[in-house]
Amino acid sequence: MGSEIQEIKNTIVQRLPSRVQVAKVEFEGPEVVIYTKNPEIITENGGLIRDLAKDIRKRIIIRSDRSVLTEPEKSIEKIHEIVPEEAKITNISFDDVTCEVIIEARKPGLVIGKYGATSREIVKGTGWAPKILRTPPISSEIIQRVRRTLRKNSKERKQILQTLGNKIHRPITLENEWTRLTSLGGFREVGRSSLFLQTPNSKILLDCGVNVAGVDDKSSYPYLNVPEFILDNLDAVVITHAHLDHSGFLPYLFHYGYEGPVYCTTPTRDLMTLLQLDNIDIAHREDKPLPFNVKHVKKCVKHTITLDYGEVTDIAPDIRLTLHNAGHILGSAIVHMHIGDGQHNFVYTGDFKYERSRLLEPAVSKFPRLESLVMESTYGGHNDVQPTRNDAEKELIKTIYKTLERGGKILIPVFAVGRAQELMIVLEEYIRHGIIDEVPVYIDGMIWEATAIHTARPEYLSKDLRDQIFHMGRNPFISDVFHKVNGIEERREIVEGEPAIILSTSGMLTGGNSVEYFKWLCGDEKSSLVFVGYQSEGSLGRRIQKGWKEIPLKEDGKTNVYNVEMEIKTIEGFSGHSDRKQLMDYVRKLSPKPEKILICHGDNYKTLDLASSIYRSYKIETKTPMNLETVRIQ
Amino acid sequence: MGSEIQEIKNTIVQRLPSRVQVAKVEFEGPEVVIYTKNPEIITENGGLIRDLAKDIRKRIIIRSDRSVLTEPEKSIEKIHEIVPEEAKITNISFDDVTCEVIIEARKPGLVIGKYGATSREIVKGTGWAPKILRTPPISSEIIQRVRRTLRKNSKERKQILQTLGNKIHRPITLENEWTRLTSLGGFREVGRSSLFLQTPNSKILLDCGVNVAGVDDKSSYPYLNVPEFILDNLDAVVITHAHLDHSGFLPYLFHYGYEGPVYCTTPTRDLMTLLQLDNIDIAHREDKPLPFNVKHVKKCVKHTITLDYGEVTDIAPDIRLTLHNAGHILGSAIVHMHIGDGQHNFVYTGDFKYERSRLLEPAVSKFPRLESLVMESTYGGHNDVQPTRNDAEKELIKTIYKTLERGGKILIPVFAVGRAQELMIVLEEYIRHGIIDEVPVYIDGMIWEATAIHTARPEYLSKDLRDQIFHMGRNPFISDVFHKVNGIEERREIVEGEPAIILSTSGMLTGGNSVEYFKWLCGDEKSSLVFVGYQSEGSLGRRIQKGWKEIPLKEDGKTNVYNVEMEIKTIEGFSGHSDRKQLMDYVRKLSPKPEKILICHGDNYKTLDLASSIYRSYKIETKTPMNLETVRIQ
Repeated sequence: MGSEIQEIKNTIVQRLPSRVQVAKVEFEGPEVVIYTKNPEIITENGGLIRDLAKDIRKRIIIRSDRSVLTEPEKSIEKIHEIVPEEAKITNISFDDVTCEVIIEARKPGLVIGKYGATSREIVKGTGWAPKILRTPPISSEIIQRVRRTLRKNSKERKQILQTLGNKIHRPITLENEWTRLTSLGGFREVGRSSLFLQTPNSKILLDCGVNVAGVDDKSSYPYLNVPEFILDNLDAVVITHAHLDHSGFLPYLFHYGYEGPVYCTTPTRDLMTLLQLDNIDIAHREDKPLPFNVKHVKKCVKHTITLDYGEVTDIAPDIRLTLHNAGHILGSAIVHMHIGDGQHNFVYTGDFKYERSRLLEPAVSKFPRLESLVMESTYGGHNDVQPTRNDAEKELIKTIYKTLERGGKILIPVFAVGRAQELMIVLEEYIRHGIIDEVPVYIDGMIWEATAIHTARPEYLSKDLRDQIFHMGRNPFISDVFHKVNGIEERREIVEGEPAIILSTSGMLTGGNSVEYFKWLCGDEKSSLVFVGYQSEGSLGRRIQKGWKEIPLKEDGKTNVYNVEMEIKTIEGFSGHSDRKQLMDYVRKLSPKPEKILICHGDNYKTLDLASSIYRSYKIETKTPMNLETVRIQ
Repeated sequence: MGSEIQEIKNTIVQRLPSRVQVAKVEFEGPEVVIYTKNPEIITENGGLIRDLAKDIRKRIIIRSDRSVLTEPEKSIEKIHEIVPEEAKITNISFDDVTCEVIIEARKPGLVIGKYGATSREIVKGTGWAPKILRTPPISSEIIQRVRRTLRKNSKERKQILQTLGNKIHRPITLENEWTRLTSLGGFREVGRSSLFLQTPNSKILLDCGVNVAGVDDKSSYPYLNVPEFILDNLDAVVITHAHLDHSGFLPYLFHYGYEGPVYCTTPTRDLMTLLQLDNIDIAHREDKPLPFNVKHVKKCVKHTITLDYGEVTDIAPDIRLTLHNAGHILGSAIVHMHIGDGQHNFVYTGDFKYERSRLLEPAVSKFPRLESLVMESTYGGHNDVQPTRNDAEKELIKTIYKTLERGGKILIPVFAVGRAQELMIVLEEYIRHGIIDEVPVYIDGMIWEATAIHTARPEYLSKDLRDQIFHMGRNPFISDVFHKVNGIEERREIVEGEPAIILSTSGMLTGGNSVEYFKWLCGDEKSSLVFVGYQSEGSLGRRIQKGWKEIPLKEDGKTNVYNVEMEIKTIEGFSGHSDRKQLMDYVRKLSPKPEKILICHGDNYKTLDLASSIYRSYKIETKTPMNLETVRIQ
C-alpha cells in the first residue's frame, strides 16, 4: 500500500467516531473509498465526511463491507417500503463489486429524499449504498447501453479505477518549473481539436477530435505522431464536449492501447458515445473504414470518469481539474486546471457560448485563479456579429407562420446534438402560446435519441428549463407536438400529408434523411427549407443556399436533376458559438484577468483578427500558435 | 547493400573510363568512396570526378584498393623523391584501413602541387591516396592528440562512418509537411545554447552548450530531458563554434550513448576539444565534477565530421547542411539547412560578427535560399552600440603607450579563444610599425595552445592575414615579440622585470593566472589593468571595473586584502559579437529576405527589443520563443 493512502487511512480512522468499523480504505480513481461495517453511522454524519474530505482534499465515498449486506430480494422489498410510490422506480440492480444498489427512477430526487434522508434510510435498512440514476422520460438506447456496459464490467472497472488511483497519487518527483502546451490540432483551423499539456510531472490531452471535412487521414486527425506525445505516459484525457471535432478521435487512443482515464461530464459521455457510434456506422456504410471500431468506443466508456460542473478533482499528482459550464451544448465544459502547488492556473474554453440560450446558461467567466487561457475563435472575425437569439427566433417564426399560412411544410436540416433541441424548445413554446398553429413537429433520425439524452440530464439545462421541469412539472421535450419518425413509409405520409415542421439530420444535407425530405419537397413552392446552421463549402446545403435552382443528385448510379421551387431561407443567430461581440465581452468579463491568451478553433484570419483585437482592447498578451507549435504558459 | 548505393555504383561504373577497375563503392558518412585498382587514372581525370559528384549530388573520395599499395618503407622514399624539400615534411604515416598515406608538412600546398599535380604523382608512385595535413608552425598538443586519436581508431571510425552513411541515405518515409524548432537552451538568455530541429523524417541538434555562470545543473544545462528529444533518434549534432556556451555539453550526449555524427569546421573541432578538456580540468580541480569525462570528449572527436565553409553535405535523408563564415571566432559558422526537396531553407547564425576584424572576415549574409532565420541578440538592445574596431584599437594603444612611458606593465585578462588572438595581431602590428615600443608580449595559459590551433588553420583567417602568411611569408602569430610563459618562476621574473604586456586567462579574473598577475601588480600605480571583454556580474573583474579599491581574496583558507593602486581601464569594441547597429545591418543586407526571424542568445529585454525593431524596420515577422517552446518554421 502506498504511503499516501496509509496516511489518509490513519486520518480517517482517527477522525471517525470510534464505533465506526473501517474495513478498508482505497483509492478508486481520484476518489477515496471507505468500506465500513456500519455505513449508517457515517452517512448520518454528513458534516463529518464533508470536513474530512476538505481536510484530505479528496472526494470520499462510503461503501458497505460485504458482511453487512442484506440479500437482494429482501433489499428490494425494503427499498419499495422506504421510497414513496411517486418516485416511480423503474429498475433496481445490485453491484457485488462495489456493494452498491443501483436504483433507476423517474424522479430520482424522491429516492434521495430531503437532504438525503431517504437515501440514508436505504443504507440503514439494506446495508447497500444506493447509487441513484434518473430514468429518462424518453427512453434512450445509448444511456441503456452505457449503463449496461458499466454494470456488466463492474469488476474490470474497479480494477481500472484502483490502478488509476495509485497512479494519480504517486509522489511528485520533479519540480514544477514549467508548463507547456502543444497544439496537436484545431489551431488556425476548425476541426480535430487536440491540445497536449505537459508539466515535468504529468501529461494531459485536452480533446481528441476529428475534422469531419478532412480529405485524408493527415488533414482529418490530430498530430498524435509527434515524438513528445507518448501514449504510455499519458495521465488523462479531458473531453470538453461531445461534438466529433472534439471527441471523434478518442476511440483511436484506446485502439492503440491507452488504458488511462477520460474525464468529462455525464451528458458528454453519453452524447459522444452516440456520435462516435454513428460515425463508425456512417463510415461503414460509405465503405471508408475508420482506424477503430465499436469495441474501442466501449473501452472508452469503461475508462470514462464523469464529473459534475464545479467538482474539483485530482487527475495527476500535480494537477487538479474542474469543469465549468461552457453554454455550447448539453454537458459542454470549460476546463480549469490548477497546476502544481499553486504555480499556475490554466483555462481551456473548448467551444463556448457567452449568451443565455433556450437550452443552457451562458459560459462561466469567473474562476478562483487564472493565469493563462486558450479560447476558441469560430466567429472571431470583426464582421462575425450575429443577430440576437430573440431576433433569430422572430425571423424563424415569421417564416414558419408564412409557410403554414400558404399550406406548406417547413424542412429544417439540423445537427442532431444541440441546435435541434434548441429549436424544439422554441417551437414548443410558440405552439403552446398559440403563436404558430398546432401543427405536428416531426423529429427524424438521431435527433430523437439525442433529445432522450437531454431528458436524462435536466440538471445540465438552463435555469428556466429546470424550473419548468422540476417545479412546474412540464418537460417541453416530451410535449405532444413532437413525433418521432420511424421509417420510410412514415416519411412518405408526412410529405404527402398536412402542413408540418420537419427537423431532420444531416444539418448540411450531406446525407441522411434531410436529403430525402428535400427531394420530395423541393418542387413544392408552398414549402420552405430553413437553414439554421453553418453550411460548409462544397456541401449540398451550401449550393442550395447560394441559389442553385437545378440540383443534380446521384441515385442508384445515375444522376437525377431536382428543380428547386421551395422557398430557401437562412436564419443566423442560433449558433452554439459566441459571436465576435460575445467573444470580446467574455474576455472583458473574465475574472481574474489572465496574463496570456492563446487563440484556437478558428480560420487563420479569424484567429489573428481576434488575437490582435484582444491585445489592442485589453492589453493582454495573445498568441496564435499553429498546429505542432509548443508554447510555455508557465 | 542499399539500393541507393547500388544505383550510385552503377552510375559510377558507367561513367568512368572502362580501364578503371572499380573494386568497391561505399558510403562513408555523407561521402561516396570509390576503391579502385588504378587510382591514378581517376585522379588524372579530375574534371570527370567533379562532374560525377555534381550529378549524384555527393562528395566523392578516391581510394586505392589494397592490392595496388607499395610497401610503406618504399613509399616514404618515393614521396621524398616526389615532394620538394621546401614542403618540409615532418611526418609520414599510413592508414591501413582507408589505404591513405598521411603526410604532415609545414607547407602542405607544396605537397599538393599546382592543381594537385604533386599529390597525383604520389598516388601514381605509391598507390596510396595522400591525406595532406599542415604541421602548425607553433606545435599544438591538442591537434596532435586529435590526429593521434583519429589515427589510432581508424578502423572504428570507418565503421562509424559506414553505419552513418547508410543511415543518411535511408529512404524518406514521410512527406515533409512541416519543420519545427524547439528551443532547449539559450533563448531569452545567454548560455547553454541548444536548438532542436525536427522534420517528419529527421531530428537535428544545433549546438549543445553549457551556461558557465549557472548556479546549478538546472540552470547550467540545456533542457535535453523534454520528451521529444530522444537521443536514439537523433540524426546529427551541428556545432556552430567552440565556445563552451555552444559546445560544452556535447560530451554529455556521448556519455549517454549518442553514436551519431557531430558536424563542425576543423578549427571548431580542435578548439572545442581544448575548451572541453580544460573545463573538465577546472571542474576536477574545483571538485565540482561534470556529468561526463575525458573519455567522452575523445568519443566526440571520433564522431566528428569536419566541413569546410561552403561545402554542401547530406546529413539526413531530407537535410543538406552548409556552414558559412560567422566572423565570431576561428572556425565559427552560420548554419544553412536545405530541408526536404526545396520545401524550406533555414539559417541559424550562432554567434556572429558583422564587421571585418583583424582575425576574420565579416559574417556571410547571402544564401542561395532562405525562408527562416534564427539569430543572436547579445548586443540587441537599442543602446548596445559599440565603438568601431579602429577606435577601440586607438584607445588600447594609447593606454599601452602611456603605461609603458611611465615604466609600468599592462595586464590584459582575456578569453583564450578569439579575443586573445585578435589582440596579438593588433599588438604585433603596432610594435612592428614602431608605434609602441618593442616590449615583450607574454602569452600565458591556454592562450598559447589556442594560438597554435590558429596557426594550423590559416585558411580560416581574414584575407588580410592569409595574404600576410601565404604571400608575404609573415605569420604574425610566430613573431618574436610573443613569449610563452612556462610556470610560476617565469611569472615572477616577468612581474619583477622590465615593462611588458601580459595576456593571460581567465578573462574575467575568475581564476587562472590573470588573478595571480593581478595580485602582484595591483599595488603598482605605474601599471595598468585593461579589460577588453564583458565582465559578468559577481566576477572579480566586474568588482574591480566598478572601482573597488580593496579586494579581499581567499588564499589557503584565509582572506587577504589587496589594495588596487594600478590604473583600471575598460576598452569596448573588441567584441566578437555584432553590436546593435551590425545586427540591424545584417538583417537589412540578408539576401534573400527571410519570411520569419526568431531571436535567441540575448537577455530577455534585448531579445524583445531587437525583435520589435526588426519588425518595425523591415516588416519581417519576428518571434522570441522562450526555452522549451516549439515554433513551426514550415
